[in-house]
Amino acid sequence: MNLELVIGDKNYSSWSLRGALALELAGVPYRERLVRLNRADTRTRILEYSPSGKVPLLITEEGLIWESLAIGEYLAERFPEAHLWPRGEYARAVARSICAEMHAGFVALRTHLPMDLKRDAALDQVPDEAKIDIQRVCALWAECRSAFGQDGPFLFGHVSLADAFYAPVASRLRSYQIDLPPVAAAYVDTIYQWPPFQRWLQAAREESEA
Amino acid sequence: MNLELVIGDKNYSSWSLRGALALELAGVPYRERLVRLNRADTRTRILEYSPSGKVPLLITEEGLIWESLAIGEYLAERFPEAHLWPRGEYARAVARSICAEMHAGFVALRTHLPMDLKRDAALDQVPDEAKIDIQRVCALWAECRSAFGQDGPFLFGHVSLADAFYAPVASRLRSYQIDLPPVAAAYVDTIYQWPPFQRWLQAAREESEA
Repeated sequence: MNLELVIGDKNYSSWSLRGALALELAGVPYRERLVRLNRADTRTRILEYSPSGKVPLLITEEGLIWESLAIGEYLAERFPEAHLWPRGEYARAVARSICAEMHAGFVALRTHLPMDLKRDAALDQVPDEAKIDIQRVCALWAECRSAFGQDGPFLFGHVSLADAFYAPVASRLRSYQIDLPPVAAAYVDTIYQWPPFQRWLQAAREESEA
Repeated sequence: MNLELVIGDKNYSSWSLRGALALELAGVPYRERLVRLNRADTRTRILEYSPSGKVPLLITEEGLIWESLAIGEYLAERFPEAHLWPRGEYARAVARSICAEMHAGFVALRTHLPMDLKRDAALDQVPDEAKIDIQRVCALWAECRSAFGQDGPFLFGHVSLADAFYAPVASRLRSYQIDLPPVAAAYVDTIYQWPPFQRWLQAAREESEA
């Protein structure tokens, strides 16, 4: 198997992080190809690989797969023994619901608190619409932990694609020093103790600035 | 099996249409529960069912499933014999890629050409950013039809969730009388000849205005 993941800057590219964590969950070796963001040639370079003009993008022997949700589903199918989704049918449906909600939503959170892994500073003011997003995220986490989290500290107990999807959100809540209810704070700790996340974070810290 | 789909107005709610078409593909009976959009009590009524505040929402015996992508995946798993996704592994990955791209993207198209099934009138001017989205949609359709469309007139030959996802886009291109390249125009015709789409369209035409 010959897989290559086209990613953006590790410090900033939350979607790239999701794709990389999905590959880590699958336990499959892959190469990374980094396209630096916010540079004059960024769009041109991404379009060399990606017809949607976005990262991440998984280059497989059969062709391109883009969008982190589709990359996750592809890997879940190819590596069933890795159980990228929760094992229970309904748990899996909820995991997919919250990933899709993340994929298309939380616009205020993403706009006002963009991922910036090296950051450790509060905003002067968190806009109200971002606060609403944060409340919704915390409610989702609490529901998942309570309903499905018996067998471990992740959203569905065992680690899953849902954690790959929410890890960048956890990082935002920590980077911007958001006050969190205990369940959410504990989940952010869980993400920061997750070895694949720690490796990405370390690499982000070592990345040169644009 | 006892399934209920919470939807918005059939004329306007493109995401509800996607959920309903997924259920039609699965061939499973379900009840509809309509929440009229753009009314004083719309948000309150949706929140009675849906913690994300959005439609569609599938009520199952086990609990709620929200987001049309997650509803589609759930049905694809529950009804494997209905082949909601294309049969080839890579075709399936591409189908999921284009659905996820739709799910989170094409913001200009969705903003400036909102679904309005009863409409049959051009815009005075299509904004440039919406034109870019339309070009991308036409390119995706042409690629899928060319690479995977041998066995039928749908994006991946046989009808699939990808068509459920792009049916509302096809309707926008027709409602706003967008000039299309031949492959895209033929695909819009395919959607308008698809019986489940025709039934929804007829129901939308019979719906009272808010």
